[in-house]
Amino acid sequence: MTSILPETNLDQQLIFWRRDFHQYAESGFLEMRTASIVAEYLSKLGYHLKVGSEVMVAEARMGVPPIEILNNHYKWAEKNGANLQWLPKFAGGMTGIVATLTTGKVGPTTASRVDMDALDIQEDLSQEHVPFKDGYASINANMMHACAHDGHTAIGLGLATLLMENKNSLTGTIKLIFQPAEEGTRGAKSMVEAGVVEDVDYFIATHLGTGIPTGEFVAGNSGYLATTKMDVTFKGIASHAGGKPEEGRNALTAAASAVLGLYGIPRHSAGASRVNVGVMNAGSGRNVIASNAFLKIETRGESSEINEYIRDQALSVLEGAAKMYQVDVNVDVVGEALSSIPSKELVNRITACAESDPAFSTITAWSTGPSGSEDATYFMNRVIELGGQATYCVVGSDLAAGHHNERFDIDEKSLRIGVNVLYRIALELNK
Amino acid sequence: MTSILPETNLDQQLIFWRRDFHQYAESGFLEMRTASIVAEYLSKLGYHLKVGSEVMVAEARMGVPPIEILNNHYKWAEKNGANLQWLPKFAGGMTGIVATLTTGKVGPTTASRVDMDALDIQEDLSQEHVPFKDGYASINANMMHACAHDGHTAIGLGLATLLMENKNSLTGTIKLIFQPAEEGTRGAKSMVEAGVVEDVDYFIATHLGTGIPTGEFVAGNSGYLATTKMDVTFKGIASHAGGKPEEGRNALTAAASAVLGLYGIPRHSAGASRVNVGVMNAGSGRNVIASNAFLKIETRGESSEINEYIRDQALSVLEGAAKMYQVDVNVDVVGEALSSIPSKELVNRITACAESDPAFSTITAWSTGPSGSEDATYFMNRVIELGGQATYCVVGSDLAAGHHNERFDIDEKSLRIGVNVLYRIALELNK
Amino acid sequence: MTSILPETNLDQQLIFWRRDFHQYAESGFLEMRTASIVAEYLSKLGYHLKVGSEVMVAEARMGVPPIEILNNHYKWAEKNGANLQWLPKFAGGMTGIVATLTTGKVGPTTASRVDMDALDIQEDLSQEHVPFKDGYASINANMMHACAHDGHTAIGLGLATLLMENKNSLTGTIKLIFQPAEEGTRGAKSMVEAGVVEDVDYFIATHLGTGIPTGEFVAGNSGYLATTKMDVTFKGIASHAGGKPEEGRNALTAAASAVLGLYGIPRHSAGASRVNVGVMNAGSGRNVIASNAFLKIETRGESSEINEYIRDQALSVLEGAAKMYQVDVNVDVVGEALSSIPSKELVNRITACAESDPAFSTITAWSTGPSGSEDATYFMNRVIELGGQATYCVVGSDLAAGHHNERFDIDEKSLRIGVNVLYRIALELNK
Amino acid sequence: MTSILPETNLDQQLIFWRRDFHQYAESGFLEMRTASIVAEYLSKLGYHLKVGSEVMVAEARMGVPPIEILNNHYKWAEKNGANLQWLPKFAGGMTGIVATLTTGKVGPTTASRVDMDALDIQEDLSQEHVPFKDGYASINANMMHACAHDGHTAIGLGLATLLMENKNSLTGTIKLIFQPAEEGTRGAKSMVEAGVVEDVDYFIATHLGTGIPTGEFVAGNSGYLATTKMDVTFKGIASHAGGKPEEGRNALTAAASAVLGLYGIPRHSAGASRVNVGVMNAGSGRNVIASNAFLKIETRGESSEINEYIRDQALSVLEGAAKMYQVDVNVDVVGEALSSIPSKELVNRITACAESDPAFSTITAWSTGPSGSEDATYFMNRVIELGGQATYCVVGSDLAAGHHNERFDIDEKSLRIGVNVLYRIALELNK
Repeated sequence: MTSILPETNLDQQLIFWRRDFHQYAESGFLEMRTASIVAEYLSKLGYHLKVGSEVMVAEARMGVPPIEILNNHYKWAEKNGANLQWLPKFAGGMTGIVATLTTGKVGPTTASRVDMDALDIQEDLSQEHVPFKDGYASINANMMHACAHDGHTAIGLGLATLLMENKNSLTGTIKLIFQPAEEGTRGAKSMVEAGVVEDVDYFIATHLGTGIPTGEFVAGNSGYLATTKMDVTFKGIASHAGGKPEEGRNALTAAASAVLGLYGIPRHSAGASRVNVGVMNAGSGRNVIASNAFLKIETRGESSEINEYIRDQALSVLEGAAKMYQVDVNVDVVGEALSSIPSKELVNRITACAESDPAFSTITAWSTGPSGSEDATYFMNRVIELGGQATYCVVGSDLAAGHHNERFDIDEKSLRIGVNVLYRIALELNK
Repeated sequence: MTSILPETNLDQQLIFWRRDFHQYAESGFLEMRTASIVAEYLSKLGYHLKVGSEVMVAEARMGVPPIEILNNHYKWAEKNGANLQWLPKFAGGMTGIVATLTTGKVGPTTASRVDMDALDIQEDLSQEHVPFKDGYASINANMMHACAHDGHTAIGLGLATLLMENKNSLTGTIKLIFQPAEEGTRGAKSMVEAGVVEDVDYFIATHLGTGIPTGEFVAGNSGYLATTKMDVTFKGIASHAGGKPEEGRNALTAAASAVLGLYGIPRHSAGASRVNVGVMNAGSGRNVIASNAFLKIETRGESSEINEYIRDQALSVLEGAAKMYQVDVNVDVVGEALSSIPSKELVNRITACAESDPAFSTITAWSTGPSGSEDATYFMNRVIELGGQATYCVVGSDLAAGHHNERFDIDEKSLRIGVNVLYRIALELNK
Repeated sequence: MTSILPETNLDQQLIFWRRDFHQYAESGFLEMRTASIVAEYLSKLGYHLKVGSEVMVAEARMGVPPIEILNNHYKWAEKNGANLQWLPKFAGGMTGIVATLTTGKVGPTTASRVDMDALDIQEDLSQEHVPFKDGYASINANMMHACAHDGHTAIGLGLATLLMENKNSLTGTIKLIFQPAEEGTRGAKSMVEAGVVEDVDYFIATHLGTGIPTGEFVAGNSGYLATTKMDVTFKGIASHAGGKPEEGRNALTAAASAVLGLYGIPRHSAGASRVNVGVMNAGSGRNVIASNAFLKIETRGESSEINEYIRDQALSVLEGAAKMYQVDVNVDVVGEALSSIPSKELVNRITACAESDPAFSTITAWSTGPSGSEDATYFMNRVIELGGQATYCVVGSDLAAGHHNERFDIDEKSLRIGVNVLYRIALELNK
Repeated sequence: MTSILPETNLDQQLIFWRRDFHQYAESGFLEMRTASIVAEYLSKLGYHLKVGSEVMVAEARMGVPPIEILNNHYKWAEKNGANLQWLPKFAGGMTGIVATLTTGKVGPTTASRVDMDALDIQEDLSQEHVPFKDGYASINANMMHACAHDGHTAIGLGLATLLMENKNSLTGTIKLIFQPAEEGTRGAKSMVEAGVVEDVDYFIATHLGTGIPTGEFVAGNSGYLATTKMDVTFKGIASHAGGKPEEGRNALTAAASAVLGLYGIPRHSAGASRVNVGVMNAGSGRNVIASNAFLKIETRGESSEINEYIRDQALSVLEGAAKMYQVDVNVDVVGEALSSIPSKELVNRITACAESDPAFSTITAWSTGPSGSEDATYFMNRVIELGGQATYCVVGSDLAAGHHNERFDIDEKSLRIGVNVLYRIALELNK
């Protein structure tokens, strides 16, 4: 395997992969078909693979779907093109992969993070939406690649191809980390706890788009907020609201009181903070004192410390509200991400690489980007903690609509641009 | 038709009817199969019938199901034993019937109210529940006769039978009013507004059970609370809770604030009052400022005046909460009932009838009964307003479980007891 | 002392006493001057007296003023006509008296409750208000006899006079219980716990007015609600609201959340309930996170059980609200009263007495009266518990303005009427 | 007047002035004695003075004390050393002064802002507190110079002295603006609206301390938050909480609901925001539905736009809460300040001046300083709007305790340092 794929072929292959993953969109911990295809391809390329429980601590996953959903989706994947040899490794939502290329020469260990999951969004099914018009809209109801992870996975496979073809030009070790459940920041922690970045010198996470147009590049994005996602359940006692109101213990009022308390958590003088109750569902019938209430909440902070402050205040609010109304409360952490600051030296080296890349008209070294959250920060912080360097890059891509929108669509030209710049960075770091 | 049905035959027929209606339970405004069977039978007996829009003002109905549900249920009724001649009259949820027997002799006009609707409850499907064990549990998911209206309908048909057989013993006019959607107190008002009791001298509503055991009878139940049922919708503006919290207008917090305000409406010194928010559903995603919230609420008062006070306070709370959070609010009245005091003279006459009935060991003239609500009060208050007399009777029936419970079941012996006492009352009033 | 005072003299003396107590109005536990004058007179009449700590358990008092106020008032009393021999017995707010008349003949023990305290209200000082116009308005700022206890004390002394003069006509034992701090329901419990009614067969509490006009009488008033009065203090941590909002722990928001929770305590199906937060004071400066908050609250119930339900719910609300906002809460019970049902037989006997009294045009045996509270109920319930009989009577009196109003004033004719009917009752019970 | 005061003499005079103003501390709009002494001295020095209504629009003042307090304080000033010739000009809280030095030579117009008011704080009266130990603690209860405005006023007079002595070295015009009521950001707006900076080319406000130690200097402080201070009054209807709860309209619950709504106003993504309810007082008696409630609130924003967003949301919350509980609400703006960005060129020139001053070891050009608020921003923004330049300087001063603390005390060495650097800046700007 001494010659690189013809450019046009890789370009076409990237688009094929991306559209295939788009059409068979799988949300967090359900990326079973996707992972099986990724594993089959990387294995054939000659990578050494570790998968499933070899690279994930099951208990460290957050917000895992119920077992019935995991099992039903497994059956769905069997019938919808999964690689049947690899599929069993990913059962039960253990959908992570680490593919390693060992050059045999002395050199650093570099890791790239690739996320594979779709969102729980119903894709637009109208002629104005290109993926539908061109026949590769998601066939899974309420699952859609509206955050470009389909493109990320394609880029990961393209990068793997170039790296293997040019193995002789490289030194050290290169690890490709295919992560599940980035949406909701639920998957990375389980791979970090399994130790997949313990030996990593350089770590790079990459995202397409995020407001950056095709032809632009960001080398060091530090704008991600630390966050905690919680599912909260209040349990009280039902009673007839007309006949025996005093016998009820009202979970709905406890939740309503908690809502007002949560939004009232004081700001932190050290930086931005957020709290949101996105969903509340409570009660069963109009004339029944509600015995159950459910909240989906999230806290965020400009730093992990600020997020911890908000989260701790939130827990007090929830417990206090339960006590006020004599009901029980259960809090389930279903997602968590940290804040992270990219490593200066690595950002400078990557900026230089991008500057030498004719694909880019504008290169930004540092950006605070959007106020979302990312669990790649778990990988970044662990690598930096151990003395390595890490960063978060953005490859620009013109978008048809914003991220998480039902008409989200990327500029497919950015796929090859992404592969190329990551390959160029690998040559710089592992030359 | 000079001879009465043999006792055993009517007994069996009552049980057959009750079990049939039980098995084909239809909730409010969907009583299309039930009504078609009732109409067919009464018509054959010789009653003069007015149905559907002849006896209901469509706009005065409250809490009518959406048109798709009405249409789908119509199709279901077609396939499940409805009388196809009568069925079209009841399309669209116009499921009321008034059957009139004119004796031709001078005498008063007496009306009996019969309610036909089931509840939105999933019936218990275990061997311990007799209707399931004996094969007549409801075949409609989430619809169940858990408040004895199946029995009421059977009694109504049995009473109609006896009255017609004994037409010659009677004077004046007898009207049997078969009412839809008593549950949620949604149907009576539409029949009152159509004028069905404008000519009535005596009005009697009857209920089985309600805590009174078989063999007991209540002649004048005044315990029903006036009530208003409201569906409330708050509409705000969604925005990303991390990125642009200031652009959102939060319907969820408005609803939560309203909840606390509603429960805090001051008591009324003139008597018991109630307010309940039974259901709250709000928001779409964890990281989105919620743009919608929905509440199911109800107010009650020992008198109609107290209920009006609570309802007016509730409206202020809802509007104020919307204003606080700069969102819109819409309030939909989906049910309403009044309080009502039975007529003393009529209660005394009916008490005397019951005392002469060997079926009863205990007769109670006046009871304040359970703190539920009943829209028969609309009929009662209108009759009394026009100078007539009205009451609400309870025929005791041993119950397997409380009203609205998934294992509710009546003592079928009370069916014949009910027919007999109502017939005895008719002989007294229209002798 | 064999001859009764001439009628006119006692009439004048009653008015003199009432106006003197009115002018030197003393609120709860400060009735030091009043008690010293009462004690001096009864002692001279020949009653056996127990006072202060002999008839009160200090720790069972509720809502006692701070020691400085007690001491300052003592000095005030010294200078304002208190009897200096008796005054020391009442220092520190131990202002109860039990005066006993032992006839030496076999007979029952009958007790009358007399309350002596004024309210914390500023009396109207205008010519339209008779006590001001005629020169006996309260000389104590913010203390006023606006609930007729000045008249009650005068009646107590008048009754004592008649009883002693007619000692030979009586049998058994008669106890006159002069109670402090009825307002706020703070004083009776301490006398009950000291055992002052352990030997009582018949107990009678009496009130003037309460909406009943001169010439009417109520023999059995059962309308008093059980109640608990609580002072609530939240303590948090202050911080600069602009500079370090996250360092504060906000007592004001905890209190606000508690307020909404308290008003939202569900109604009780067994009868009327109430909850009120009458006063809230919180915070120190606009730009400081409030570290303190104070609430005055009260709960009420038609029965003691209902009040206990509301009070227990209130305690949960207060503790939960403190927990929500990470502050401490302290609850001080500063008043408590029970509900009570008068004894049927005693009511009947007293009704008969009143019917024989020419002063009354209308006699009501049973009344549920106003929805206030009274701690005479502690005496009543203890007497009934021990097998005795008890009741609460109302002697009608035309009022210039409602109770607790700054222009409240009684019809002084009712003083002699009250003495007479109570004397008549004594003759009936201890004949 | 060609020779400057001997250094030692001015040093002593500065300390004398500062201690005198400290001892006779006067809070916002009551600086009558202070202003009369300032006016007398400046007038004698030869400045042209405009005072009172010549330099303030009375209606544009915010949070003015009630007329009785203004009048009483006027009498106090008369007796406590005010200059009786000037005092009448400052009656009624019109306590501003603009002193102008016209050199007669062409040159710019430069203005310095000096604030004179004390805080509503009770000064510590213990030996550990130097002003008390040395005999110049405030003689006014609850008024204390705990924010160094006594020092500012002394520096203003010292600067005036040096400028007048060196008038011949200067060009253009110099205005000294002595402002009342900076605390609570209540006074500056009224002077801006009176036009006192319409002709100003350079504007400098100065503060001592604020965390900067003696020997340090900040040339451009931009850290002040825009703010709005509001007094809020809810008015409802009182009623007896036991007897007629339904007749009340509860201002206390409206205020409590508003409190929770205010703290819940969403964060703004463009920068820091704050909201605080520092004080709540509501209700009259435990058993009365509260008819009145009072809140002291403030909003802040990193920019004036953010503060406006928070303020507008706050107004909706207040109106909505009033509507919820059917009460009236009145909002009184009692203070307001803007955010402001110092002018770059002016900051650079002043930085250079400070760098040439041997008194300073550390000079900071730009600081975002503390998150407080300052109404000097009104002057700054108006000057910049009209094409001039403005800045806010901090002269370091070691503090005994933080600003607004009862033991606050400055390092008096910083007084002369302040005079010198401001004089040096004047020589630079008006050379």
